[in-house]
Amino acid sequence: MPPFAEFIDILGTFSFAVSGAFAAMEKRLDPFGVLILAFITSIGGGTVRDLLIGDTPVAWLQQPSIGWVIIAGTAGAFFFGRRLKKIQSLLTSFDALGLGLFTIIGIQKGLVHHLGPVVCIALGTMTGCFGGVILDIVLNKVPLIFQKDIYASASILGGIAYILLIKFPVPDTIAAAISIILIFTTRMLGIRYRWHLPVWYQSKKG
Amino acid sequence: MPPFAEFIDILGTFSFAVSGAFAAMEKRLDPFGVLILAFITSIGGGTVRDLLIGDTPVAWLQQPSIGWVIIAGTAGAFFFGRRLKKIQSLLTSFDALGLGLFTIIGIQKGLVHHLGPVVCIALGTMTGCFGGVILDIVLNKVPLIFQKDIYASASILGGIAYILLIKFPVPDTIAAAISIILIFTTRMLGIRYRWHLPVWYQSKKG
Amino acid sequence: MPPFAEFIDILGTFSFAVSGAFAAMEKRLDPFGVLILAFITSIGGGTVRDLLIGDTPVAWLQQPSIGWVIIAGTAGAFFFGRRLKKIQSLLTSFDALGLGLFTIIGIQKGLVHHLGPVVCIALGTMTGCFGGVILDIVLNKVPLIFQKDIYASASILGGIAYILLIKFPVPDTIAAAISIILIFTTRMLGIRYRWHLPVWYQSKKG
Repeated sequence: MPPFAEFIDILGTFSFAVSGAFAAMEKRLDPFGVLILAFITSIGGGTVRDLLIGDTPVAWLQQPSIGWVIIAGTAGAFFFGRRLKKIQSLLTSFDALGLGLFTIIGIQKGLVHHLGPVVCIALGTMTGCFGGVILDIVLNKVPLIFQKDIYASASILGGIAYILLIKFPVPDTIAAAISIILIFTTRMLGIRYRWHLPVWYQSKKG
Repeated sequence: MPPFAEFIDILGTFSFAVSGAFAAMEKRLDPFGVLILAFITSIGGGTVRDLLIGDTPVAWLQQPSIGWVIIAGTAGAFFFGRRLKKIQSLLTSFDALGLGLFTIIGIQKGLVHHLGPVVCIALGTMTGCFGGVILDIVLNKVPLIFQKDIYASASILGGIAYILLIKFPVPDTIAAAISIILIFTTRMLGIRYRWHLPVWYQSKKG
Repeated sequence: MPPFAEFIDILGTFSFAVSGAFAAMEKRLDPFGVLILAFITSIGGGTVRDLLIGDTPVAWLQQPSIGWVIIAGTAGAFFFGRRLKKIQSLLTSFDALGLGLFTIIGIQKGLVHHLGPVVCIALGTMTGCFGGVILDIVLNKVPLIFQKDIYASASILGGIAYILLIKFPVPDTIAAAISIILIFTTRMLGIRYRWHLPVWYQSKKG
């Protein structure tokens, strides 16, 4: 991985770990439960992707440094909880950057395995989103990303953009950068202006 | 896959997609959430099976057409929701056919990998049922198939029949056809006459 | 596997099956639902570990005898439910022994694959705990092990001890025995004296 991607990868992992740890703390899980959920949130998306592709041992098993990043994120959430809450917008930015990068990494992995475009975009979206999905499932909530905000949608949008750009063809690095920026911007604007997708259908009950 | 099996496979996938999309719409998920849940419901069972066997990349990653079938099913659920509800019995029939075929496909995959009969039946049942199980887990419900109707039970029954028939030995195609019809019929009769398994034990509370 | 390990493995599997079956019966699942949950509880942890490592087909697919142990555990829970409840402390002991052995088996598998120490301990803890985690997720509860008792914590503690002992170096068999006894004792004392981990943080709400 080039140094910049690695830097963002670590930031994204850290940010997802903090986010998972906070969610677990709000449910009053015990400290090891908090650590495990931080872990799951950080590595869940990439793990599901690697399992589906058959690229095992999955990535984080071979990157022990990832474990320390997650432990650092969890410790940060514990001891500096109040302060980290204050810099929530910073964390959200990391998370949005991570979403962008993880989406593109997931798509690139799919392309390397000669998978079709729809499948690649699905893999990218899983890589970006499934850590949070698994977190919500474990915490017994309907995954938030399906319900509100522009999250999965930003990832899918960026994924489509990336696939179109590299077919055009735009050089891979430029296509990746544009798509990551697109996902990041869409996500941040979505939070800022409380965008949500239209609900086209009648709910029978809710 | 022979054309008939492929035809039923596509119908089953479409039907599971519609079923997942409806479940997601009732929980008022956003459109992409609906699409993702349709996806999960359709490919969940086969994915779990392929992961356990180690047959990766999992099947749907190599069949991009499956993605379009699922998108079609989701779109159908969105735009013709009312009409599709009216033909619910048609959808239920597809679902029951899919359950039968997916069960047998799962068992056959297990036999190809020289796995034992109990294990093969378990794989078949997973293939048929786990899409719906994962759907319910994501939507934060105790999976319905464990609680009511003859669903997993029909799959297990047909699986046992298939294993016995091919040991007899009955030619594979005939054994498969009989077992699929058995699962389909058991499931449909179970719905029609509201069959349920006996509850042999006392609940402490419920 | 040496005979003693195999004996404990079977006892652990049986115990987890009984435990899963009881949990499912309390939720009033139908008999096949109960069987499937007993299955999931018994093989969940090892399955997640094998999937992550890429050691497929996963272990239980190649050990059909495991299926019969689980069926026996489920049948036992059904027909001798009241009696098994009375010997709960015996079951708890099996469960604690299973936790210890499964933890060490998981770590050893990680070491065989040349994975780092933090990763190996994580794999051991997953092997010991994730059957129960998946059970709780399916039954729509926040996994209990994250919330109360010394469970994951005993597993992690024993895992750290094992890694330190074999680095020392202590012969593997002795290190394993000490660590299993440590996990077992920690878990049993934790239940006996209602130990729980400190909650260092303020809950926003709960």
